[in-house]
Amino acid sequence: MTPQSSRHMPAEMHVEGVLAPDIRDCVAACLDCYQTCLTTAMHHCLEAGGEHTEPTHFRLMMACAEICRSAAHFMLLGSDDHARLCAECARICTACADDCERLGGMTACVDACRRCAEHCRTMAQ
Amino acid sequence: MTPQSSRHMPAEMHVEGVLAPDIRDCVAACLDCYQTCLTTAMHHCLEAGGEHTEPTHFRLMMACAEICRSAAHFMLLGSDDHARLCAECARICTACADDCERLGGMTACVDACRRCAEHCRTMAQ
Amino acid sequence: MTPQSSRHMPAEMHVEGVLAPDIRDCVAACLDCYQTCLTTAMHHCLEAGGEHTEPTHFRLMMACAEICRSAAHFMLLGSDDHARLCAECARICTACADDCERLGGMTACVDACRRCAEHCRTMAQ
Amino acid sequence: MTPQSSRHMPAEMHVEGVLAPDIRDCVAACLDCYQTCLTTAMHHCLEAGGEHTEPTHFRLMMACAEICRSAAHFMLLGSDDHARLCAECARICTACADDCERLGGMTACVDACRRCAEHCRTMAQ
Repeated sequence: MTPQSSRHMPAEMHVEGVLAPDIRDCVAACLDCYQTCLTTAMHHCLEAGGEHTEPTHFRLMMACAEICRSAAHFMLLGSDDHARLCAECARICTACADDCERLGGMTACVDACRRCAEHCRTMAQ
Repeated sequence: MTPQSSRHMPAEMHVEGVLAPDIRDCVAACLDCYQTCLTTAMHHCLEAGGEHTEPTHFRLMMACAEICRSAAHFMLLGSDDHARLCAECARICTACADDCERLGGMTACVDACRRCAEHCRTMAQ
Repeated sequence: MTPQSSRHMPAEMHVEGVLAPDIRDCVAACLDCYQTCLTTAMHHCLEAGGEHTEPTHFRLMMACAEICRSAAHFMLLGSDDHARLCAECARICTACADDCERLGGMTACVDACRRCAEHCRTMAQ
Repeated sequence: MTPQSSRHMPAEMHVEGVLAPDIRDCVAACLDCYQTCLTTAMHHCLEAGGEHTEPTHFRLMMACAEICRSAAHFMLLGSDDHARLCAECARICTACADDCERLGGMTACVDACRRCAEHCRTMAQ
């Protein structure tokens, strides 16, 4: 992606041109899912209690927030390994969406997870 | 913010309603600045070399990305301490904007840092 | 800390010599506190439920884990702003220790938070 | 791992008993590798310049630091998905060790990466 011989930069950098459009969209979907999972866990789940703070569900929410945060970081770093992180992110987002659907009342989180999973699956190919 | 007695949730949560609008805008500004600083450091700066990879400048870029990532996290957590993190974030973003301006050719990064600093200063009051 | 003129490295780097001993100790205390807070929240608190998953307490545990993670990151980056992050970390660790003490049964977390607060306060001076 | 019926805690929690010994060792190896990679990149590599700040090498160092940080986080969360993260961490640590070996003068980083890769491979099985 960045050959060594490219160490000459134009006078002005356009961030928009640095990342390919599909990568930028995937980063946006990951950061949106990260925000939604973390907010939902720390507000909706903690306030609702019961099934919502059961270890298995709550840990999955937190793991989903973390993998989304980290997959976005890999894409921003320009790491060659981002595809594998995205594959893992898609898997965890899907599991999280399924679990939120099972509990009900968490449409926003389900939607963000499904959207992120779709972007990440494309990126992983 | 969340009294114990509120442990009854409506059937459906609206994430939009969980965070106050000014907090959501500040989170967005922080995550935008995080993305711009990290991308700029890992692409523009590493590819340009010279002054752009000097320890003092490069570390400031990385510190700016980290504090933006962390200030956003605090706001999403709903932590009572987010205002202090935002104050620190505003300070580092301003230093980063100044240093990018000094080097030139990094308008996108300067703009994202200034925007984030403004949102964080408001949040810190 | 790293003047431009120092861009000549010895043949072998000794990581041990890169960070000053007091900084290394503070990083160790921060990462220990991060581990203890996160583990305690995700295992002890979620399994105990009740007061342990009340939003105010649980968010403080998560905020403490995050600021410890981030303060350590700043010290490892070699950022000039690490002292301010450490000051904030000391404050949050102390609040977290107090709240864990109030609930009882969380000695390990109280100890890790107090130790980290002490190291961070020294660093902040 | 944590059945719902276990929501009764002993009076005192022993953090030492929360995570299995092999997981604790793997977390320690990951956090050690994270510290070493980040410190080496931000001090040794930035100060040495030349090959050490070439995009491909430097990004690999940063990706290695991030995956170690995140794999540790997954283990601390008690996430069922930690094994896959560890598998990915082992892969990236090995690539990073190889690349540091190629450049030379980075023994501490090579050692930390190899040690972490070994722990993560065991965890991934």
